[in-house]
Amino acid sequence: MSPIENLTRELGKLPGVGAKTSLRLAYHLVKGPRDNLRRLASALELVADRVHPCPACGNYCDAELCPVCGDPSRDREVICVVEEAYEVGAIERAGRYRGLFHVLGGRLSPLDGIGPDELAIDALVQRLDTAGGRVKEVILATNASVEGEATAVYLEGVLRAYPVRVTRLARGIPVGSDLEYIDGTTIAEALDGRREM
Amino acid sequence: MSPIENLTRELGKLPGVGAKTSLRLAYHLVKGPRDNLRRLASALELVADRVHPCPACGNYCDAELCPVCGDPSRDREVICVVEEAYEVGAIERAGRYRGLFHVLGGRLSPLDGIGPDELAIDALVQRLDTAGGRVKEVILATNASVEGEATAVYLEGVLRAYPVRVTRLARGIPVGSDLEYIDGTTIAEALDGRREM
Repeated sequence: MSPIENLTRELGKLPGVGAKTSLRLAYHLVKGPRDNLRRLASALELVADRVHPCPACGNYCDAELCPVCGDPSRDREVICVVEEAYEVGAIERAGRYRGLFHVLGGRLSPLDGIGPDELAIDALVQRLDTAGGRVKEVILATNASVEGEATAVYLEGVLRAYPVRVTRLARGIPVGSDLEYIDGTTIAEALDGRREM
Repeated sequence: MSPIENLTRELGKLPGVGAKTSLRLAYHLVKGPRDNLRRLASALELVADRVHPCPACGNYCDAELCPVCGDPSRDREVICVVEEAYEVGAIERAGRYRGLFHVLGGRLSPLDGIGPDELAIDALVQRLDTAGGRVKEVILATNASVEGEATAVYLEGVLRAYPVRVTRLARGIPVGSDLEYIDGTTIAEALDGRREM
């Protein structure tokens, strides 16, 4: 296999990158300056060498703890549970949340063979045990999909044994969108969850 | 910048990879086995270290000459001119062509500041000079786009000074397609180029 074929094969393993795209990417990289190839290669190596899950919350980090867990100003009474590490960034960018996170590493999906044991649910329970009542609220921020919902319901059952408030992100109309294009289930949820102005 | 942000930024430089896709790719890589990261990194390094344009035709290769130019069984009387190196593969996979190639490295596109000097046209002329009449035919296999067509017309003008047959890939109905979905210009070209059965 030539170096280009080899690169094409490796790029083709990325999600959403098929045979044609990987070829196009490989030739784009070959045609560009060598430095671009080397910078991407060392970015990959750096991640391989340095990034690991935060031992506290499961988010990825390159220090002992992730930036959130390591920040003494964060509110340790609230834990926001997300499916995947990249969702931490989505919530952080919103700029509203000051508590901690917990990354499950996926969602319950029996068809894909993902049960409770495949997710970091034991780790969450252990965090609550270790905190000894200092955690007052767990926000379930799993996705609004069928699997995310099932995961939230399962977690709610597990957390019932703990003296914590268990909440779920509000459902409703996304900011900036037209009612016309919103599905009925979302509108129904938005009506149920309506608030005083 | 964290290693993940760094990787996301580098991936975001790939064509067709926006902010969301690069984040998704980065987290996919972080979540997978370290080996996948390292294999992709070394595939990139290998290309950076070893791949260079073939001094004869401009195709990319990792040997002294590209596999086509280095193959003594190829017909040295025919040169097929393509815009980009990855188009060599498309023609090779068709399995019909036994001649050599010449990679222009682009197409004439005045709006993008790409004139004749930016393409390997001098190199093509030099090849014909060096071959001293041994090249009998130049096939213009630039794309069937406006720019590809303009490039072919320009090359035809340049090559008129040489005693070579200058041909262009046939236009017509692609194999396996329905007439219903073919544009009128293509059908007109297919009529013009019709052949005895």
